[in-house]
Amino acid sequence: MNIAILGTGMVGQAFASRLQALGHTVTIGTRNVADTLAKTDNDGMGNPPFPVWHKSNNTVLLKTFAEAVSGAEAIFNCTKGDAVMKVLESIGTEPLSGKLFIDISNPLDFSNGFPPTLSVCNTSSLGEEIQKAYPALNVVKSMNTMTVGIMVNPALVQGNHTVFMSGNNAEAKAKTATFLQSFGWQERNIIDLGDITTARGTEMLLPVWVRLFAKLQTPMFNFHINIQQAV
Amino acid sequence: MNIAILGTGMVGQAFASRLQALGHTVTIGTRNVADTLAKTDNDGMGNPPFPVWHKSNNTVLLKTFAEAVSGAEAIFNCTKGDAVMKVLESIGTEPLSGKLFIDISNPLDFSNGFPPTLSVCNTSSLGEEIQKAYPALNVVKSMNTMTVGIMVNPALVQGNHTVFMSGNNAEAKAKTATFLQSFGWQERNIIDLGDITTARGTEMLLPVWVRLFAKLQTPMFNFHINIQQAV
Repeated sequence: MNIAILGTGMVGQAFASRLQALGHTVTIGTRNVADTLAKTDNDGMGNPPFPVWHKSNNTVLLKTFAEAVSGAEAIFNCTKGDAVMKVLESIGTEPLSGKLFIDISNPLDFSNGFPPTLSVCNTSSLGEEIQKAYPALNVVKSMNTMTVGIMVNPALVQGNHTVFMSGNNAEAKAKTATFLQSFGWQERNIIDLGDITTARGTEMLLPVWVRLFAKLQTPMFNFHINIQQAV
Repeated sequence: MNIAILGTGMVGQAFASRLQALGHTVTIGTRNVADTLAKTDNDGMGNPPFPVWHKSNNTVLLKTFAEAVSGAEAIFNCTKGDAVMKVLESIGTEPLSGKLFIDISNPLDFSNGFPPTLSVCNTSSLGEEIQKAYPALNVVKSMNTMTVGIMVNPALVQGNHTVFMSGNNAEAKAKTATFLQSFGWQERNIIDLGDITTARGTEMLLPVWVRLFAKLQTPMFNFHINIQQAV
């Protein structure tokens, strides 16, 4: 499948590697290709610049956001939460119409340091805001409740743990579930919460996630919804 | 131990029964004792009125909020989230000073129907608001992320699942952990998230909890933080 990934950071790189290894044709979208390829500094988290990763993953194409989306059957949104609206504006409404848009982003606001707050929550969510702005886009919020390594390789955490999906379009969620299973998610651990308004719930897991990260000193954990009633 | 329970509803009743069965002396606090004992209507959830429960639990004392707290070594707050501040005002600052206050409530706002929103979140929490208003009270937010049956009897859900604690006072959290263990919580499933500001995180689990309740058609599930990294 032709897949577009929006965002050149750690999350975009992890999805690109994983999806390419699964046999997909992957194009990463960025604002300015030349600028991204000229990067030499580590990112804010100390990760090496994009060209270092791209050297060992050079069959992954790098294009503008609009070019990456054109011809893609599915889009993985791996931008930061505060960047996604600008990125989508640069693509425009028409090229996004009818596309599957798997939204991994969270509306984290680090402007007051750690722990971050959410820039939207409670009565809306970033997933809903994207869906409202692009009604013909098939937004599925998923995988936003865990660290990226676990998203694409759930076996990093032993036993059962949960991945959620929120979205208005049943076919889009079915396709998302197929991607999830290809990453190693077992069907019983995939919970379809309902329409895109349920993204409020999963985005609002982030405040406890960041506190658990601080407490456990590792991002290698995940939420599990334990529904095993005693008999 | 002498224990005060604030609130005569299902949650208060469940804690009263459990704590009394564990050998504690339990006093339930209410606004007006005569009014509570005169109730004949089911509550909004269809549960029988307090006197029905009290008939088979008549060694549990019923007093005013202030009388219940006086002489209590620990207070379980089982009021609804929108009632707690008024209840504490009726008790006053001095009687609450130095007391352990285990806060189970959530700031759920049902004024726009289901699903509820939160009346405070993101930059504060009900736990924090209580702590701010009563600095000498030792507030520990705990057990607010599950249905009441599981709070007092975690064996209702098989396997591992998690209960959180948030609070500023280490001794108060240690006492809370002792109560949790007496209810059946295993030490490895009790997570001390840190100070009372971490209550934001656990209260913000409610939006996904209510969606899971709608999806699963049962409240008999719980969050588990799976930290078992693959080797």
